[in-house]
Amino acid sequence: MIPADLPGFFARRADLDPADYIELDYAFECYGDPRAAAAHLCSEQSTAQWHRIGIDEDFRPRFGAKVLDLHVEGQRSAPSYPTASASAAAGPGAVSACRVTIAHPHGNFGPRLPNLLSAVAGEGVFFVPGIPLIKLLDLRMPDGFLSSFSGPRFGLDGIRDLLGVHGRPIFFGVIKPNIGLPPEPFAELGYQGWLGGLDVAKDDEMLADAPWCPLDRRSALLGEARRRAEAVTGVAKGYMANITDEVDRLLELHDLAVANGANMLLINALPVGLSAVRMLSGHARVPLIGHFPMIAALSRVPGYGIHTRVLIKLQRLAGLDAIVMPGFGGRMGMDEAEVLDGVAACLDPMGPIARSLPIPGGSDWAGTLEGVYRRVGSVDFGFIPGRGVFGHPMGPTGGAASLRQAWDAIVAGIAIEQYARTHPELRAAIDAFGGKA
Amino acid sequence: MIPADLPGFFARRADLDPADYIELDYAFECYGDPRAAAAHLCSEQSTAQWHRIGIDEDFRPRFGAKVLDLHVEGQRSAPSYPTASASAAAGPGAVSACRVTIAHPHGNFGPRLPNLLSAVAGEGVFFVPGIPLIKLLDLRMPDGFLSSFSGPRFGLDGIRDLLGVHGRPIFFGVIKPNIGLPPEPFAELGYQGWLGGLDVAKDDEMLADAPWCPLDRRSALLGEARRRAEAVTGVAKGYMANITDEVDRLLELHDLAVANGANMLLINALPVGLSAVRMLSGHARVPLIGHFPMIAALSRVPGYGIHTRVLIKLQRLAGLDAIVMPGFGGRMGMDEAEVLDGVAACLDPMGPIARSLPIPGGSDWAGTLEGVYRRVGSVDFGFIPGRGVFGHPMGPTGGAASLRQAWDAIVAGIAIEQYARTHPELRAAIDAFGGKA
Repeated sequence: MIPADLPGFFARRADLDPADYIELDYAFECYGDPRAAAAHLCSEQSTAQWHRIGIDEDFRPRFGAKVLDLHVEGQRSAPSYPTASASAAAGPGAVSACRVTIAHPHGNFGPRLPNLLSAVAGEGVFFVPGIPLIKLLDLRMPDGFLSSFSGPRFGLDGIRDLLGVHGRPIFFGVIKPNIGLPPEPFAELGYQGWLGGLDVAKDDEMLADAPWCPLDRRSALLGEARRRAEAVTGVAKGYMANITDEVDRLLELHDLAVANGANMLLINALPVGLSAVRMLSGHARVPLIGHFPMIAALSRVPGYGIHTRVLIKLQRLAGLDAIVMPGFGGRMGMDEAEVLDGVAACLDPMGPIARSLPIPGGSDWAGTLEGVYRRVGSVDFGFIPGRGVFGHPMGPTGGAASLRQAWDAIVAGIAIEQYARTHPELRAAIDAFGGKA
Repeated sequence: MIPADLPGFFARRADLDPADYIELDYAFECYGDPRAAAAHLCSEQSTAQWHRIGIDEDFRPRFGAKVLDLHVEGQRSAPSYPTASASAAAGPGAVSACRVTIAHPHGNFGPRLPNLLSAVAGEGVFFVPGIPLIKLLDLRMPDGFLSSFSGPRFGLDGIRDLLGVHGRPIFFGVIKPNIGLPPEPFAELGYQGWLGGLDVAKDDEMLADAPWCPLDRRSALLGEARRRAEAVTGVAKGYMANITDEVDRLLELHDLAVANGANMLLINALPVGLSAVRMLSGHARVPLIGHFPMIAALSRVPGYGIHTRVLIKLQRLAGLDAIVMPGFGGRMGMDEAEVLDGVAACLDPMGPIARSLPIPGGSDWAGTLEGVYRRVGSVDFGFIPGRGVFGHPMGPTGGAASLRQAWDAIVAGIAIEQYARTHPELRAAIDAFGGKA
């Protein structure tokens, strides 16, 4: 690209039809002229060659991605991290840290998740000349583009209706031990959790349709246990079966688990692929909950990769009714603002796309509930302990009860230590898990 | 985990049945005792709770991942990169840089790619207490596990047979302009490339089934042009159509493109998901070639994420007959050893799984061919210029001819500058692209 080529990759927002573009925010570090680096970033992710040799044509007005805003936020002598491509000679001021907003014409690929990912996080983004470090921070899509997607079929409101739970967080529990239990004792643990007050008992995200705990038998036993628990407690309960498997088995496993009594399903979104999630969502008769394996590998290094808010927006777009994400507190080592970004990505308006239930999690127990509630700032979240329920000294019934007691204490404005004086399950939870709060 | 729990996550290789385990190599940086960190890594990726509360049982012998080797390679005062979870207090020697090999019982999840990914690169790997930085460096799978996969149906040998090309690299060309051309001129460019000596003309990885260049019309025109080129040149030619799209369209687009005359197909492996690739491979009647969007976001930071060799092995396992990967030279900023690892991941013995054709690429042209050949060390690779063919001053026919001339020069042991004296297409390539060699 020569200097005269650069202006073709810049535009004013007012000169573009917003219906034709998705907007992308990136942070990058570059060598040399930031304007040239930003133009390359646009060129590489759209029409890297905008005319045939010897022919007077220009594809950039329609097909080119375009820089809308570019800010240089600082200068460095070398990139923050030594990626292989950061080996160029460096020195004081050699590297500029930038923020850029790009308008990318979505007509280049259409409302298809794999093609969207290929454009906004593909070769054309991570191999830009002069840009050794880059992170996709956010994407915003116009309503016309969004309306090609169905989004969550149940969403936050549908999950609340299914469970009959309004005005409070939804209490999930991950049945533990996660790996190794045969279906019979596994189902018994779920049953005990429901009796104690769990809304939803769920499979661990690593529990597959394994010979030692086949999904058919597991979901049949849990489905039956769920109905018994509903009869005993008089309230609706959820069993969330993990159907994560090869793509060509997902619909069949959905049908099997739902027929057996699973009324929610868990799917590991990145491992099966967002497009497979979209396919499954189009078929789903029960809410789909996404778990987050592999996302950390893309998102966890500051300044490189893909921000979690992008991946959560795309999971919502793909149709996940609830999204499990690494949550608050020291255990997951997440930046609090990043967790809140993820919660907002589930709940903020997104054109015609319904809200997903955010489920920030990580070694929670009764004592961490208030902190999650205060940080989220509303009751619209799922709370998802594992050991905090199923490792409770009084068993799953006591563990689940300790969560409900903690919530009752919050509602009553009573400190949990005080509330625990008259609630032995909460007392036992504090004694067992309080040292790690 | 208390100290007495650690030994349950360690084993000697001689005490395990190798048929029951995949082996995983990780590099990590940890706070505190490396043995405790490695045990946590095993626990979190397998049976994080190995017994029910109050019951005397132990799932670790069968279901636990186990440390086989652990080496501390150095001490640091803080982690190499400031991930959010690296915020713990640090000081001289506070952080140990380690290498670990883990035996993971694959019976925990079975021969399923999404579940494999969830186990070896999921929450249980990237959120281990005390491990702020970790990279999955390699995985090795026993033949019994591998034999549940079909792998490449054509592979390197099948692609050679299809094209009738033996004893030399296979010459691919990415038709450019990549985005914006309607089908008619797009097909004409491909035709010109074939006439000049291209083996395979291919769609760009970002070129989808878009209204301005529909796959149906594009593949019909290219299929027809391919047959004309075969008639004119007397040799077999390949047209590789990009069918990357939503998962539920892949089989239909395969059938459409193949019926229209595409005899190879391109798929963006991570954006559609490895499991969707496996599904497609089971259906494919022509070789499948994988492209690499998103892989850099997982792999490019040293010490964090997933090494490209792992992702290339998994693409081969999923059934890709050829694998495009970021190649040698300054343009892609890849470490040379990492590219060679990727080539080896395609070609090295892998139980019953056929070899994939490695296609290292990135702004190649006639002048970079010898370097790729010398580095790969054999003729078993694909060479994949875009602009080097389709941006050649004499057009695609001249661009393709320049590649073949460069290969002839290599075979004859003649420097390309000398060979160019009697080969104007090669001369023009050097003049146009040589400044960037």
